[in-house]
Amino acid sequence: LRCFSTSVRSTVMDEILSRVVAPLPTYETRDKAAPPPESNSLEFMHLYKSLDKEDKLNLLTKLSQDFGVDHKSVSDLAVKLLDAQLRDLATILQVEDRLRYSLVPRYRHLLSHISRVEGGVKFLVDLRTDLLEIISSKASDSSQIRDLNSTLKSLLSEWFSVGLLKLERITWQSPCDILQKISHYEAVHPVRNWTDLKRRVGPYRRCYAFTHAAMPGEPLVVLHVALTEDISNNIQGIVREFATLDAEEDLNKINAAVFYSISSTQPGLQGVELGNYLIKRVVRELQSEFPHMCQFSSLSPIPGFTLWLQGLLSQSRKEGRGLELMSELEWRELEQATDCAPGMGAIDALRKLIGTSEWMRSERLCLLLEPVLMRLCAWYLYGEKRRGYALNPVANFHLQNGATMWRLNWHADTSPRGVANSCGIMVNYRYFLNETSQNSALYLQNKVITASEQVLSLVSQFQKNSKL
Amino acid sequence: LRCFSTSVRSTVMDEILSRVVAPLPTYETRDKAAPPPESNSLEFMHLYKSLDKEDKLNLLTKLSQDFGVDHKSVSDLAVKLLDAQLRDLATILQVEDRLRYSLVPRYRHLLSHISRVEGGVKFLVDLRTDLLEIISSKASDSSQIRDLNSTLKSLLSEWFSVGLLKLERITWQSPCDILQKISHYEAVHPVRNWTDLKRRVGPYRRCYAFTHAAMPGEPLVVLHVALTEDISNNIQGIVREFATLDAEEDLNKINAAVFYSISSTQPGLQGVELGNYLIKRVVRELQSEFPHMCQFSSLSPIPGFTLWLQGLLSQSRKEGRGLELMSELEWRELEQATDCAPGMGAIDALRKLIGTSEWMRSERLCLLLEPVLMRLCAWYLYGEKRRGYALNPVANFHLQNGATMWRLNWHADTSPRGVANSCGIMVNYRYFLNETSQNSALYLQNKVITASEQVLSLVSQFQKNSKL
Amino acid sequence: LRCFSTSVRSTVMDEILSRVVAPLPTYETRDKAAPPPESNSLEFMHLYKSLDKEDKLNLLTKLSQDFGVDHKSVSDLAVKLLDAQLRDLATILQVEDRLRYSLVPRYRHLLSHISRVEGGVKFLVDLRTDLLEIISSKASDSSQIRDLNSTLKSLLSEWFSVGLLKLERITWQSPCDILQKISHYEAVHPVRNWTDLKRRVGPYRRCYAFTHAAMPGEPLVVLHVALTEDISNNIQGIVREFATLDAEEDLNKINAAVFYSISSTQPGLQGVELGNYLIKRVVRELQSEFPHMCQFSSLSPIPGFTLWLQGLLSQSRKEGRGLELMSELEWRELEQATDCAPGMGAIDALRKLIGTSEWMRSERLCLLLEPVLMRLCAWYLYGEKRRGYALNPVANFHLQNGATMWRLNWHADTSPRGVANSCGIMVNYRYFLNETSQNSALYLQNKVITASEQVLSLVSQFQKNSKL
Amino acid sequence: LRCFSTSVRSTVMDEILSRVVAPLPTYETRDKAAPPPESNSLEFMHLYKSLDKEDKLNLLTKLSQDFGVDHKSVSDLAVKLLDAQLRDLATILQVEDRLRYSLVPRYRHLLSHISRVEGGVKFLVDLRTDLLEIISSKASDSSQIRDLNSTLKSLLSEWFSVGLLKLERITWQSPCDILQKISHYEAVHPVRNWTDLKRRVGPYRRCYAFTHAAMPGEPLVVLHVALTEDISNNIQGIVREFATLDAEEDLNKINAAVFYSISSTQPGLQGVELGNYLIKRVVRELQSEFPHMCQFSSLSPIPGFTLWLQGLLSQSRKEGRGLELMSELEWRELEQATDCAPGMGAIDALRKLIGTSEWMRSERLCLLLEPVLMRLCAWYLYGEKRRGYALNPVANFHLQNGATMWRLNWHADTSPRGVANSCGIMVNYRYFLNETSQNSALYLQNKVITASEQVLSLVSQFQKNSKL
Repeated sequence: LRCFSTSVRSTVMDEILSRVVAPLPTYETRDKAAPPPESNSLEFMHLYKSLDKEDKLNLLTKLSQDFGVDHKSVSDLAVKLLDAQLRDLATILQVEDRLRYSLVPRYRHLLSHISRVEGGVKFLVDLRTDLLEIISSKASDSSQIRDLNSTLKSLLSEWFSVGLLKLERITWQSPCDILQKISHYEAVHPVRNWTDLKRRVGPYRRCYAFTHAAMPGEPLVVLHVALTEDISNNIQGIVREFATLDAEEDLNKINAAVFYSISSTQPGLQGVELGNYLIKRVVRELQSEFPHMCQFSSLSPIPGFTLWLQGLLSQSRKEGRGLELMSELEWRELEQATDCAPGMGAIDALRKLIGTSEWMRSERLCLLLEPVLMRLCAWYLYGEKRRGYALNPVANFHLQNGATMWRLNWHADTSPRGVANSCGIMVNYRYFLNETSQNSALYLQNKVITASEQVLSLVSQFQKNSKL
Repeated sequence: LRCFSTSVRSTVMDEILSRVVAPLPTYETRDKAAPPPESNSLEFMHLYKSLDKEDKLNLLTKLSQDFGVDHKSVSDLAVKLLDAQLRDLATILQVEDRLRYSLVPRYRHLLSHISRVEGGVKFLVDLRTDLLEIISSKASDSSQIRDLNSTLKSLLSEWFSVGLLKLERITWQSPCDILQKISHYEAVHPVRNWTDLKRRVGPYRRCYAFTHAAMPGEPLVVLHVALTEDISNNIQGIVREFATLDAEEDLNKINAAVFYSISSTQPGLQGVELGNYLIKRVVRELQSEFPHMCQFSSLSPIPGFTLWLQGLLSQSRKEGRGLELMSELEWRELEQATDCAPGMGAIDALRKLIGTSEWMRSERLCLLLEPVLMRLCAWYLYGEKRRGYALNPVANFHLQNGATMWRLNWHADTSPRGVANSCGIMVNYRYFLNETSQNSALYLQNKVITASEQVLSLVSQFQKNSKL
Repeated sequence: LRCFSTSVRSTVMDEILSRVVAPLPTYETRDKAAPPPESNSLEFMHLYKSLDKEDKLNLLTKLSQDFGVDHKSVSDLAVKLLDAQLRDLATILQVEDRLRYSLVPRYRHLLSHISRVEGGVKFLVDLRTDLLEIISSKASDSSQIRDLNSTLKSLLSEWFSVGLLKLERITWQSPCDILQKISHYEAVHPVRNWTDLKRRVGPYRRCYAFTHAAMPGEPLVVLHVALTEDISNNIQGIVREFATLDAEEDLNKINAAVFYSISSTQPGLQGVELGNYLIKRVVRELQSEFPHMCQFSSLSPIPGFTLWLQGLLSQSRKEGRGLELMSELEWRELEQATDCAPGMGAIDALRKLIGTSEWMRSERLCLLLEPVLMRLCAWYLYGEKRRGYALNPVANFHLQNGATMWRLNWHADTSPRGVANSCGIMVNYRYFLNETSQNSALYLQNKVITASEQVLSLVSQFQKNSKL
Repeated sequence: LRCFSTSVRSTVMDEILSRVVAPLPTYETRDKAAPPPESNSLEFMHLYKSLDKEDKLNLLTKLSQDFGVDHKSVSDLAVKLLDAQLRDLATILQVEDRLRYSLVPRYRHLLSHISRVEGGVKFLVDLRTDLLEIISSKASDSSQIRDLNSTLKSLLSEWFSVGLLKLERITWQSPCDILQKISHYEAVHPVRNWTDLKRRVGPYRRCYAFTHAAMPGEPLVVLHVALTEDISNNIQGIVREFATLDAEEDLNKINAAVFYSISSTQPGLQGVELGNYLIKRVVRELQSEFPHMCQFSSLSPIPGFTLWLQGLLSQSRKEGRGLELMSELEWRELEQATDCAPGMGAIDALRKLIGTSEWMRSERLCLLLEPVLMRLCAWYLYGEKRRGYALNPVANFHLQNGATMWRLNWHADTSPRGVANSCGIMVNYRYFLNETSQNSALYLQNKVITASEQVLSLVSQFQKNSKL
């Protein structure tokens, strides 16, 4: 296709689409219709894969515009429905059903049929990745593209319904192919080498994934768990410690399960609940393996904290409101420690400090900054909102699941990445199993965050200073 | 629940339903809503399983009536949609989407959530079995029950989409559990004992099933295939022959694949296409195992033929139109062979004959009846219709799949069951692979049946007599 | 081969054997020798399988006579060894090793090479079945055949060493092929149908087998276990009870493991310890599944008891010593109950009674015979010996394993078979795990039988009467 | 044990050994003996593992000396055997059997029993590794230790008989654990990283291993095969080429199977034939996958060639016989190329050259040295012998298997290791399937090496110069 001019390509696409996107059967014959030949689906898949980015957008735009809902017949039925309001219920139901049928876009059937072809489901997951990219990059702002995306999402939600997922425990006995993917997908605490990977599936560790019959050998969401004596307050002890590589697990040393990494691997499944269900299933699995275990908690990163803090400092400097962030005493100590001019200089010094990780090596600076950064971070997690929900996406994820914002941990991730993202602070979201339903409802319906005393106390220290 | 009076039970059901069928989130918050707690689904499942038949009907009626669509908000949106017609497309799309959302019955979410619970999908398949039973037995004729049924069917269609099914070949090495079920579900040619079963998964046979991740160990649809030198013209050679029980397959003797039995095992999946796809998948499988094989055909029973014939005879007697069924000469021979009075007596004699299987033992009667029954049967299969499609359900199934009505076979099933159902006649529906798509479309869209010369010639012999 | 005369066949065999049984390499080149081509082994296997029984005997006789040890070289080395006695130890060791090498029959290498061919091990197991049949049927009494047998047995003992066996639990999910074999091999309490079989691998039951890498899909020895509240005192409750077919196991009702059937499937492995090891492995398995379980016992048949009793009665009648078997009072009651003449008539009546199972239906006779048969049976098991060990083979097996003769059970097997074999009596051999080693040693070295008070008391009642 | 003095330790060992090495049953009771309790084996294993190297030697020495054969009873039976020579055959056989029994060292039973314990077989394989180390390091030169070694070897030969081995194909879907071991054990062409490993189990490659039921997850011998268009003449194209990492195999490009690496992983199985059988099995496997394939060949390293050449040069220098290795013209060219003094100086220069890999980078030197090194290498492989067999162990292995010494390849392994070991030369041993039996016999019995014309021509060029 690539050798043709734009307009020729466009014509060819039109021609193919009108051939492969079968017209809808009438409402009356909808159960009698033959499924279109598999070759339609294959042709569409083949065409799509052969296109470059720009033509993909063109094709999807055409598909969403020309093969969607027939608005005329929808509005006709709307008229009929209003007419039917005075008649009996059966008639109303009948017209509603016809209306419902007429609101199904024609391309939905194509998507359904593609899912039946070998490799079709994976194709659609990848197609949705493209759609999301188009939407977020504003390559198109058409309502139809958004409709196509939401139609596809709702189909994927059915196909990836939790009842159809399989929980697999990943161990060193799992296929190399899977383990390599696990390693590749680990975004939170990157796997450095195969010994590191072996560690993460070895003793005192559990690694679980959801897989799906239509995408064999492809972990969809992966959860890494550390089995520990107490709820971990740093990540070094989990991903950097190799002493136990060949140890036998000692049941007496296993009191807590710490979820230290959860990664979704398929961008195209965005918005399809998987991680939430994986955590719940794993908790059940662990409870059956360790009946007496009762501490379940994440040890989570705080992406965006440093960035947010830089923004805050920058704004404070502009508005000259530094005092709201730190007490006078703290500013003075900082000035001395950084050897800078008082006033705005200290803010600049602080911005420079947290721009690198060097302050971590100075005991003095660490002592000085700990209370400051901890209360700022508590506020960032607890107080900063977007549409009423926690701004931080990791916090939002665990709070939706019903976890409690339990403990902020200083010097919890001293890797360059950890320091750069969140000044080395990490947070435990703890799952109190008999409270998660209620917490989840409170958060989702009333936007209330459940938090521990430690967190609340840090938050109130922040508020006292900032007078917010 | 059973110890309470009807009205108390009804109140209790109301109370439970309004608790477990979560109210719908508003359109705006639909993506932000927490999934209801799993306990809701479990409570509903538990309640339903504990009810007797009558109360199940009551519960389903309540569910479908009180937790369906909010008609008021649908009609409000219909008004809005009509108002929006003059505005821009984005607005129309927006209102359409709201309308679409408002047309989703509230109970659909309950069903979705049940599918996520362990055993939930199987529960819903069984629930649909009950719904179909209610509808076909006319226990309820409410439109809402029918809506509930069609909502559930459309969900099941997504979950049991072919991409999510797994083809399994069943052999003597398969789990006993599966083989016992295969034996149990075989409705077409019942399995008599375990040697018989072993035969059906042994050399020169193939047995395939679709299974589904959410219902492990449960074959959903089962296809039995015989590998033969020529397309079989009788079932005895397939299910009664044990000579080859421990033989090695001789590739030179394998030219044809005869589908001699296909059974769906889950009544609750009625209307969800499975058998069609299974046949296609198996053909692919066989082609890859036997690249040179090119004969694919069913050997199918003709349930209902004898019953239909009895009806026809009874009517002919009433209307005195016997001559239309057989020629004068044939009637005369029949009178002599059965030693009965001429005229209506011969019709009675014929009705009596085909009421038992004894005529099969008389060579004279067999010779006499063969041409008669064969052309009647050809007409029954080819000419008798229901809403334009073949009346016989097996014929309808294979014709929908694109098969050709290829050959009627005399003395093809001499078992009591075979004689009682179809006077011992069976039929091959043959799959010419490069014609199935076209045949299927012709049949489904234009109600045209593709048939071989043998069939067409029998049909025309019938027509000559009957002047139909 | 069959069409040739005996002498021609004999010549052909000689020719083939001298070709396929490779001559031994010299002692010096023994590690440098090329293994003979696989075709040698295949030719021998093919030849052997094609022969009828008589020619098999001929072939094995030739093999054992003409391809055994070279007696001349053995005796030469014996001379050398005696010469070497005065020399240093290294020399003695050297000559001993040469002597050892010369004592290996030439055919041993053939057997070894056969084991390496696909299906070779199974061939040898079956060959040994033939050898044992030849020896026990006295078809040959040659010492060489016995040597061949013992050479083969020692090879099989190495190949079927327990370290190379795999324990498999058989369930209803196991391949049908295996379950059919399990059913077929069950000699102790025959399996009547597939529901019966399903029961034996269902809840409250365990079925274990040893399998071997060289004979895949072939259970070598099978152990059936019932999980019960108390040690069972009858077999009906185990093999006739179907109430629990689909039950969930209730851990609180599982206190005892009752081994109610153990069967070896390969006659050719006679003398190779398998059952013993299987029981030990299964005990370990059960202890890990049910940590608190502490009652392990067999529920065993007593094959041969009735036969032995008939012999005893017959002899007593001849010698007129009836009084030694029953007390005067008991005889009198028997005379009345059977309405027979006093004296020898009562013995005859008793012989007749136990020749059928009808007495089981008379409460009076049962009451009367219980104490008599129980003490006779106790004596049969405990007192009757062969070369100092228990005459009853089942008793001998469990006593070797270190079990205690624990309890005789009346009306324990009321099946026709049970009554015919042992007047319905069964016995528990109980495994007290911390005593089995010691019991086993006591029995094997000192021929001491460990028995419970119940058994000892029955034995002493017998002795009081019989004055033995 | 370590805290005790030597003499105390010795006493403790004596005590334990006399407890755990059960005395032999008499010949008469040999079939009636109870197996010793498993705890004996476990105690010995535990003791052995806890010892340091020196004490291991002490223990093994004690075991071999004090628990071997009872020489007195052997010589008594030798006397009896000589006495029996005049009697009937049955008597002779009887005494021979007793003699055979008496020649079985007492410790053989301990070894047998250890093999039945979990992990026992692996323990014995490792124990034999120690024994071989003791023998080859001359830590002990006792005949008894050698006897112990050969007893253990003969047991291992039975347990690792080919019939008990399982062929496994290793792919990227195999457990990571296995693949890591495969990588670790690859001694011939070390695996550099996981991409390299993935390549070796990817398209156009096959990797097979023998595993054993008693050592699960432990590949015993591993064979790497490349599927190529022609028999490869260098290793770079096999282990350094990643173009095809995700390719589909094109059957038309697969004409030859090149065995480019075979590694035994268990030193303790030295002398137990495994590699030989693995090659044969793999050939069968490949023939069934690629029925038309007919080129099977190794691409083998030549370890020891450079070392041998250095020795030869050193000796030539001493004896002043340089001319025998190269022609005058060649020496002259070398002198010019290396800029060295004529005469002995050139030999020194040559020695220096092949001591590094730098000459490989000079085209001139390569051209000059190719004919020289190729004919020297041909002679090394073909002409240099040890006890009549090829000195080079790899050559000896393939020649024993019946391969033909087929082609020497210049610049075939340009890795530092390849140049250091064999001046970059590699050799193909080709398997002509219908000649291997005969070749193997010729080599093993008559020490005749089958070689191609290329090899023979190189050899004769060498001989012409050297006048050997």
